[in-house]
Amino acid sequence: MKGAVLAIGTELLLGDVVNSNAAVLGKALAAAGVEVVANEALADDLPVLVAAVHRHLADVDVLILCGGLGPTRDDLTREVIAAALDAPLKRDPEIEQRLRDLFAGWGREMPDAVLAQADVPAGAETLDNSAGTAPGVWLEKDGKVVVALPGPPPELRAASTTVWPRLAARTGRVVTTRQVLVHGVGESAVAELVEPGLVLPNGVGMSYLASGGLVRVRFTTTGDPAVLDPLVAHADAALGDAVWGHDSDTVEGVVHDRLFGAGQTVAVAESLTGGALSAALSARPGASTTFRGGMVVYATDLKSSLAGVPGPLLDASGAVAPDTAAALAEGARTRLGATWGLAVTGVAGPDGQEGKPVGTVFLAVAGPTCEVLEARLPGDRDRVRALTVQSALHLLRRHLMSGKV
Amino acid sequence: MKGAVLAIGTELLLGDVVNSNAAVLGKALAAAGVEVVANEALADDLPVLVAAVHRHLADVDVLILCGGLGPTRDDLTREVIAAALDAPLKRDPEIEQRLRDLFAGWGREMPDAVLAQADVPAGAETLDNSAGTAPGVWLEKDGKVVVALPGPPPELRAASTTVWPRLAARTGRVVTTRQVLVHGVGESAVAELVEPGLVLPNGVGMSYLASGGLVRVRFTTTGDPAVLDPLVAHADAALGDAVWGHDSDTVEGVVHDRLFGAGQTVAVAESLTGGALSAALSARPGASTTFRGGMVVYATDLKSSLAGVPGPLLDASGAVAPDTAAALAEGARTRLGATWGLAVTGVAGPDGQEGKPVGTVFLAVAGPTCEVLEARLPGDRDRVRALTVQSALHLLRRHLMSGKV
Repeated sequence: MKGAVLAIGTELLLGDVVNSNAAVLGKALAAAGVEVVANEALADDLPVLVAAVHRHLADVDVLILCGGLGPTRDDLTREVIAAALDAPLKRDPEIEQRLRDLFAGWGREMPDAVLAQADVPAGAETLDNSAGTAPGVWLEKDGKVVVALPGPPPELRAASTTVWPRLAARTGRVVTTRQVLVHGVGESAVAELVEPGLVLPNGVGMSYLASGGLVRVRFTTTGDPAVLDPLVAHADAALGDAVWGHDSDTVEGVVHDRLFGAGQTVAVAESLTGGALSAALSARPGASTTFRGGMVVYATDLKSSLAGVPGPLLDASGAVAPDTAAALAEGARTRLGATWGLAVTGVAGPDGQEGKPVGTVFLAVAGPTCEVLEARLPGDRDRVRALTVQSALHLLRRHLMSGKV
Repeated sequence: MKGAVLAIGTELLLGDVVNSNAAVLGKALAAAGVEVVANEALADDLPVLVAAVHRHLADVDVLILCGGLGPTRDDLTREVIAAALDAPLKRDPEIEQRLRDLFAGWGREMPDAVLAQADVPAGAETLDNSAGTAPGVWLEKDGKVVVALPGPPPELRAASTTVWPRLAARTGRVVTTRQVLVHGVGESAVAELVEPGLVLPNGVGMSYLASGGLVRVRFTTTGDPAVLDPLVAHADAALGDAVWGHDSDTVEGVVHDRLFGAGQTVAVAESLTGGALSAALSARPGASTTFRGGMVVYATDLKSSLAGVPGPLLDASGAVAPDTAAALAEGARTRLGATWGLAVTGVAGPDGQEGKPVGTVFLAVAGPTCEVLEARLPGDRDRVRALTVQSALHLLRRHLMSGKV
């Protein structure tokens, strides 16, 4: 069963918004056993969109339309379906009533334009959208399935919950993906380590994904998932300590699970990352069991007054220095009462600092085991900040996995 | 001049990575006067990609290929260009030497696979990639331009710097976009306020973009930019105080500029956002002139021990309460030595807290003027955290714009 995703909105072509829905929909379709053959974005242009629906339906069994279900004049998806599939729009009194009730509940007067969201193509089912006003649409015609979902991500999630099980039931074919997650080794070096002696069975796909200093080795099959086990074992053996997780593991998740399992906690003192390291450690549900809190010591004087770096040390070494990083980690550990203190200080740019170039970063962990690292990180301010967060999380992860605890 | 973007990589169709390059390339092409008519992602499949290149070149003058220039077996873009445009690959000795020098400089042995990145299609120019190993490609054939750029965003930026001016010189046609940025009013209500009395001149496009609690009203023209001025003025007048900025303004940027202009600073105490509010205030270059730092008081006891909320108040009111938020803002202001203290505390979920439902958030600003707000934010944990950051930034922005300072 083949599928295509067509995201609708001139803002996507102009680059005003990032089309994150494309990834969400691709992942959901792949997991439901639908082979996604195209993922396209087109402008709010009725004839262009109608032609695209016809073009895609010539190739695929399932077409997901995303966006363009809102109340404004540039929301065309309902009209596109009506025109492309000869399914004239009819106002649904139940949806109209729900819209009126919603606005009444909010104590707001309902703009008339909102009622367009109660118009449903003939022969279509609507998909409840508990997160917004525009319901989704499921329409079957000539053996093809066309689904229209709202663009705002929370509404897309809400309106699509019933879509994926229905599609999976039709394909009866599930794609299994296994990933080996690597840190500290480049993409081509990973390939050179993994590929000797590796034999891919028929129907097994393999690829490398490199991003943000990490490399993922991915194996996929639509057959027996067990064929992937020896391949993952081969990669694990070939990559050794560079492997930090598998499949959907995140480094925050690995850190959280290790801390939780050991009944330990972490606290942060961070400078150049400005809060992003704490935000990463607090992102997942249950973070409060392992993350105490953090100090964002952006101004140099706060490194002493808030985080407790001795003034003479700070004066002598400066804000960007290994012993300052170590003192920040110790300050986080003691002042915030955690098992581990994790600290970063460095130069995010655009300009150098204390004679040190952009990308100079010192990372420190203080606790049952201690370490200070210097890193030279590539890229601009945003990238240096993002890579610093990842490097700090992996520094703590190594200590939690080292067994020295 | 029409253009298309073709992103290459099975990982994009499987949703393993978000195709953020699509927005970057769309924005750059639009600014260069190229009308982007399609933005597509396809899998690492040679025949499919060759066919797609032919299909797009039938419709457009410029085709941007993105990704697939790496060193591994699934990087096919060079072969796609060679096959689709009958431009056989030839190894470039200068690029080969640069690759050898790069790895020598890193003190790493160069895997042979890396040398594939020195293969250049016949008749193509290469585009320097100062951020990585894979150069880009610029190839002109039969009056069409085909550009191949590396997928990692920093490498894409580095390799594309010369591409946009070259394309803009050919189009001689520049698209002007003006945006009116609105906070606190829904999309359809914005439309009902703006549209009465609004007359769009020929060739002027208008659209609404709603995301993350904000609405953008966008006008575009390829003609005289001056025609947009009265439209922007009309929208400003119709929306009044709901307008907080224009065009590429960000709320962090507006806050930073107002603080900088007044010689003022801000410090943060945040709970449910776990550092994300501080990270937003420290994101832009020059943030150190207006952002002092922050306290991430995730554990309840830190709200007293680190941020100075009086213990009896915390015991009586709890962690999620208006007076606790006010005390956190005052603690940030005084303990971190800033003109303004900004604080948030609330329930991000997945579970309620102190009998309060997920999405209950208290926001406080302390300084020349003070305010405490209660918000009921929709969505899951990630969305509540993101909306809390935006709401807090807009709370401070309102105080900085109120003229009461």
